[in-house]
Amino acid sequence: MRHFLSTLDWSLDELDDLLVRGLRIKRGESTPDFRGKVMALLFFNASMRTRVSFEAGLARFGGHALYVQPGRDTYVFEHREGAVMDGPTQEHVKEAAPVLARYVHAVGIRKSDLITPAATTAEVSGTWKELKADEFMRAYARHSPAPVVNLESNFQHPCQELADRMTLREKLGETRGKKYVLTWAWHPKSLPLATPHSQLLSAAGLGMNVVHLRPQGYDLDPEVVAAARQRAEATGGSLEITDDVDAAYDGAHAVCAKSYGSMRSWGHFEKERKDKEPLRPRWIVDADKMGRTNGAIFMHCLPIRRNVKATDAVLDGPKSVVVDQAENRMWAQVALLEHLFTGERCMP
Amino acid sequence: MRHFLSTLDWSLDELDDLLVRGLRIKRGESTPDFRGKVMALLFFNASMRTRVSFEAGLARFGGHALYVQPGRDTYVFEHREGAVMDGPTQEHVKEAAPVLARYVHAVGIRKSDLITPAATTAEVSGTWKELKADEFMRAYARHSPAPVVNLESNFQHPCQELADRMTLREKLGETRGKKYVLTWAWHPKSLPLATPHSQLLSAAGLGMNVVHLRPQGYDLDPEVVAAARQRAEATGGSLEITDDVDAAYDGAHAVCAKSYGSMRSWGHFEKERKDKEPLRPRWIVDADKMGRTNGAIFMHCLPIRRNVKATDAVLDGPKSVVVDQAENRMWAQVALLEHLFTGERCMP
Amino acid sequence: MRHFLSTLDWSLDELDDLLVRGLRIKRGESTPDFRGKVMALLFFNASMRTRVSFEAGLARFGGHALYVQPGRDTYVFEHREGAVMDGPTQEHVKEAAPVLARYVHAVGIRKSDLITPAATTAEVSGTWKELKADEFMRAYARHSPAPVVNLESNFQHPCQELADRMTLREKLGETRGKKYVLTWAWHPKSLPLATPHSQLLSAAGLGMNVVHLRPQGYDLDPEVVAAARQRAEATGGSLEITDDVDAAYDGAHAVCAKSYGSMRSWGHFEKERKDKEPLRPRWIVDADKMGRTNGAIFMHCLPIRRNVKATDAVLDGPKSVVVDQAENRMWAQVALLEHLFTGERCMP
Repeated sequence: MRHFLSTLDWSLDELDDLLVRGLRIKRGESTPDFRGKVMALLFFNASMRTRVSFEAGLARFGGHALYVQPGRDTYVFEHREGAVMDGPTQEHVKEAAPVLARYVHAVGIRKSDLITPAATTAEVSGTWKELKADEFMRAYARHSPAPVVNLESNFQHPCQELADRMTLREKLGETRGKKYVLTWAWHPKSLPLATPHSQLLSAAGLGMNVVHLRPQGYDLDPEVVAAARQRAEATGGSLEITDDVDAAYDGAHAVCAKSYGSMRSWGHFEKERKDKEPLRPRWIVDADKMGRTNGAIFMHCLPIRRNVKATDAVLDGPKSVVVDQAENRMWAQVALLEHLFTGERCMP
Repeated sequence: MRHFLSTLDWSLDELDDLLVRGLRIKRGESTPDFRGKVMALLFFNASMRTRVSFEAGLARFGGHALYVQPGRDTYVFEHREGAVMDGPTQEHVKEAAPVLARYVHAVGIRKSDLITPAATTAEVSGTWKELKADEFMRAYARHSPAPVVNLESNFQHPCQELADRMTLREKLGETRGKKYVLTWAWHPKSLPLATPHSQLLSAAGLGMNVVHLRPQGYDLDPEVVAAARQRAEATGGSLEITDDVDAAYDGAHAVCAKSYGSMRSWGHFEKERKDKEPLRPRWIVDADKMGRTNGAIFMHCLPIRRNVKATDAVLDGPKSVVVDQAENRMWAQVALLEHLFTGERCMP
Repeated sequence: MRHFLSTLDWSLDELDDLLVRGLRIKRGESTPDFRGKVMALLFFNASMRTRVSFEAGLARFGGHALYVQPGRDTYVFEHREGAVMDGPTQEHVKEAAPVLARYVHAVGIRKSDLITPAATTAEVSGTWKELKADEFMRAYARHSPAPVVNLESNFQHPCQELADRMTLREKLGETRGKKYVLTWAWHPKSLPLATPHSQLLSAAGLGMNVVHLRPQGYDLDPEVVAAARQRAEATGGSLEITDDVDAAYDGAHAVCAKSYGSMRSWGHFEKERKDKEPLRPRWIVDADKMGRTNGAIFMHCLPIRRNVKATDAVLDGPKSVVVDQAENRMWAQVALLEHLFTGERCMP
């Protein structure tokens, strides 16, 4: 039994196997059988794509997703060992995880301290080092006899990574030696780091020359950067980090935009908002910048704020693959679930 | 690919085809196959009947409905062309609609500015002319490669219209030349216009002599009235608008009650509440009034406030068909979905 | 057509039949066919186990559960005969129940006035005698042509009773003559009475020597106690009520812990909180107390506050069956639904 909490726990061979499986299912060459299979989706944060892509992916093949919103639909969970639960928490993961595993065949969890409702910024209660440990999800998984799937934590968004890998392979064919640019983009809020982490890792394992383009102060987590560098080098690619916008776009085959908050101004999001205002015009993805590329596809994880992170011209142009990328969430996840349910690999 | 946003976009032939299809499915003469089919239901407003009838109708035949509450489960949508999305909106329908169409096979949308929680009245932000354009739903549909079904908008409630047509045919047999009365009823709030619009249209396309009975000031939208008149005349019926309660009930074969706000006092709902108080005793549907009819069936879309819009005696009497009418929501919608999924008609 | 509102309406023979059916399904000796079957679950209160166990139990065998949260997803219900509905209520059960029965094949209802969100205590609006009548649920059932299942009311939690009966039989084999202790436990809040009522009844119908261990003032409803006594005696067992902790544990085969509010301090929950503080150390289930038993299994309905109602040592020990007990919710309910859908018994 495997959990799918972070792709750092999975080998590139295993991720490639999921990629091939996903493409086969998408093309109709392979049909999973999810009849009688049930997955619980625990959303501590709101979601549209993740929830719908899992629920539809299961339903299309006869399975069922059970959408649960902890705190609204359930009791308040405890995960600390030895807790004397006479305060607000009502149910320990030591009971919740094994019980759910008796009812369902897999459990998905979205729990991010950094996802916030529309206009507000997160009040961060811990350091980044504390948050990236994803303590709740890890504790839940430790007590779960059923596979746990990370639907986005503080540290990673591994299902997005699977979808982006599929999209790069599908759109570019041979990916080795091609240039992938992950560019920071301006956004009014300080968004979570999980998705850019997973996007950096997605291309790094495909032999691409990966460029992380960001303003000074917007580096990603060093552990992720190190893992991405290792993956890039292991597959014949490279990793470069730069703030040279023009050079980064030059000759690119894929441009992926993502906004996220700076770890340098951690927890001071209002200050960050003011500080980053001057970056706005230079860091939007527009037709001029895309014109420097080698006919690059444009990627984004969605939702995207139009004319803020990328212009209408880019999003409505022929090289935008954001809808295909979102669609691949479903196929990648169906492949993952088929693997988790059966334990089988599709390649020898 | 067709959307089902307003029955004004559909021919009477097509609506009759759906009617026949729905009755056949209800009688067990035809069995849709919805296995692997998924429909997303986006409810911007609360619902019981609409949601349950769609979800159950799909599940009975192997399909799956995905219940989504935008704003609670999802990001805040934008639908204006060219918007610079640095305010509260987070996701454009230009992305949301095509992405959902990759996951699911049809999308239902309920979005009414006039449906309000229990005790409150709507704060109307636009003129009726603006609201009746159903801008969001139309914009969504323009960008949706999957069929979009109107689950009640400001302008229409076309699924209610399908159910009412089925009910009239089922209960009255031959409908041509029979008398249908749509009567306004008193209600503490100013309710939306979508349902009475669709109810006026339902009977008008069946060759009935349609009487719209309402107090002065409670006319329906002129575009709907004109369309109903045209339908009535095209099918050998007629349309009359009156405030003569006794004459309206005389000899009726079907009485359908509905409360709704006056367009004359648009946005001044507290004033309307006081103004309409004197109408209360005269406009309730009671046994006396029903006694003037030709053994008319009593129709209402539900929910109904008992002893406010109609008395217990009417609702508990043998001529009330409100439960059958609600049941027909399911069969009419199943027929609609089968048509949308297959593109086929059931009549030559 | 049967409702399942209170096990006092069902014979022990019938309950035994469900028990056997549930164990057969759990062992894979019998496979229900729920294809095309739909159940609506109306949750007036939050739930995790109940909702997930029903939804997963249906989905595993091809059925579908429809999760509805009245008040949030629906209109506000009325259930009083003859009500003039010009206040907050919008839909009468006289319409809601028959309509839902046209859409779905069974309806589950959770409605407890005593379940409250995390830190708050219930404001009790009626006497216990009023609340235990479960007026809404009974009124709904009277008007429902589809079977209604009690998912926890003020008076009972009969699905918990079915699960506990299965667990006792499964873990103890022959239950007759064995000793079952239902012990009150300290808890910061005043919890509902439905579950302890059902737990007392669960063991009383299996021929066990049932001991209700509680501090003075924490008696259960006299009607339940009388029914439990009758069941115990009818099956060759006994019922004893005591506050002698040590004697109660001595030689027990099963210990089931449950906290609940005192009927003596009804509606004065803050006062009760202070009054019961001294009981805390004596009434927790710990290894010492369990050491006096005859290797008793430890039962609890979940969620449980660790180190408040029972210690980690008990919950993590080899005799804790709380996860199995929760799992049996699903099998017991699947058996119940199969019986309700088919009307068949599994024993001659």
